[in-house]
Amino acid sequence: MIEALRGVDLVRVRDGQREPDMDRAAAEEPLEVRLHGRPFAVIMRTPGADRELAAGFLLAERVVRSADDLGTIEHCRAEAPPDPDATADAVDAAVRTSHPENVINVTLAGRSADALEGLLAERRQVLTNSSCGLCGRLTIASLKADVDELPVGRPVRAAVVSDLPRRLREAQAVFEETGGLHAAGLFTFEGGLESLAEDVGRHNAVDKVIGRMLMLEALPLSERLLFVSGRTSYEIVQKALLAGIPIVGSVSAPSTLAIDLAREAGLTLLGFVRGTSFNIYSHPGRIE
Amino acid sequence: MIEALRGVDLVRVRDGQREPDMDRAAAEEPLEVRLHGRPFAVIMRTPGADRELAAGFLLAERVVRSADDLGTIEHCRAEAPPDPDATADAVDAAVRTSHPENVINVTLAGRSADALEGLLAERRQVLTNSSCGLCGRLTIASLKADVDELPVGRPVRAAVVSDLPRRLREAQAVFEETGGLHAAGLFTFEGGLESLAEDVGRHNAVDKVIGRMLMLEALPLSERLLFVSGRTSYEIVQKALLAGIPIVGSVSAPSTLAIDLAREAGLTLLGFVRGTSFNIYSHPGRIE
Repeated sequence: MIEALRGVDLVRVRDGQREPDMDRAAAEEPLEVRLHGRPFAVIMRTPGADRELAAGFLLAERVVRSADDLGTIEHCRAEAPPDPDATADAVDAAVRTSHPENVINVTLAGRSADALEGLLAERRQVLTNSSCGLCGRLTIASLKADVDELPVGRPVRAAVVSDLPRRLREAQAVFEETGGLHAAGLFTFEGGLESLAEDVGRHNAVDKVIGRMLMLEALPLSERLLFVSGRTSYEIVQKALLAGIPIVGSVSAPSTLAIDLAREAGLTLLGFVRGTSFNIYSHPGRIE
Repeated sequence: MIEALRGVDLVRVRDGQREPDMDRAAAEEPLEVRLHGRPFAVIMRTPGADRELAAGFLLAERVVRSADDLGTIEHCRAEAPPDPDATADAVDAAVRTSHPENVINVTLAGRSADALEGLLAERRQVLTNSSCGLCGRLTIASLKADVDELPVGRPVRAAVVSDLPRRLREAQAVFEETGGLHAAGLFTFEGGLESLAEDVGRHNAVDKVIGRMLMLEALPLSERLLFVSGRTSYEIVQKALLAGIPIVGSVSAPSTLAIDLAREAGLTLLGFVRGTSFNIYSHPGRIE
């Protein structure tokens, strides 16, 4: 069984001192929902209560209306391992299905079953669009095939990192606080704020910040830190990678998939940046 | 211009006393992104920096790779008002486009422009699937056409509401805390916890809780409160409505669209449930 929490090793920085440590991070894994064995959707989720998630998701998507529309909901058995010569899409599929608990099959009953062909036809294109960040569709394998390795570059001082929450809050204060907005800020390695955006959606705030720099023809954003107000999911790291940002930090926790992606792609991921301490989850060489 | 914050009237409950008050909520509105005038995606976002959001979104979706791939990014002009005899889909489209700032048109250049036809063909089905909760595609008009009105039912005591954060935290503590997991709990009107789920994604936690009850054939969930650990977006209220839950609460803030939807659909929306005080944003009659 895949656990909802996973132990991760990290470097803990406290008052300028570094030491290796362990912590537990919330697991984030893709769940492929199939209808009658055929792909319907991929949800990034914390493993556990997968059958309930699939049922609730299908209700919210209005594929089912009541329990009468549900037949069986079962995890799939293991499938063949990935072919080394496969295309990125095939690798992607293989990575997802290599862990059988990440695939769940639902059979429909009643009126929903009658509508199955139409549903699948409508949905087919969602799944074949391998760039659907919104749906969390990409896995590490297919993403890695698509982005350049980040250069190591020069390091940033720990004091600059510790100062980021204050700088983000100050810039946000200008905008006014409702308690309902996430913020994302792009900072130079000296700690200067280059761009700030706020949004009810964390991902949107990051898209706004990166989009602004894209429009200014400033990509790749080497020697920049992206700092976000909320938790760091896989998608945030993915967006940073596509923009060439080497360091991503947050006042809060990263997910396991965010950590895995950061490690594989050469990105420095920081979490729990509070006071004079923070955690480094990957590539600590960029922090001085 | 649509503001990022909007004043909302509410009922403030403090130590058992109620009084009408005003507050500001983070705006949440759909943004339809068009490519060369043709629908590509709908993003739920806080208005502001829309051009940047569109650019960053298209980068994350890998529609563009660099500024060279971007032509123009412009808000669309106002369109015709909705036809009263239109279908739900047409009303949906009309609501979205009735505010011209909620539609942005992007022209592509270079290699991206060459790939335009393929991109639009891949995407067409995403937009025609009117139930895509993940993409925040529904607007209030089309959702309302699709759910039953919530019955008024009997009221719940304010003391039960004030106790929800503690009950949710206690149940979460059993599961262990990483600082990285959102929680959603379903409670009876007496404050008993009926179902709890945790996930890196707030929406998933809600889907898990509701999905469990769906599998138990317990829908509609009348005389139940849904309490979530994070901010309340439009999607959370939508999921509650589809499950027939009459009251949704949170320790944090709701978005404007969550408030609007709750008001129109007859759902009682509570926010900032802390200590002995909380805010009632809609249908206060259900709180005693």
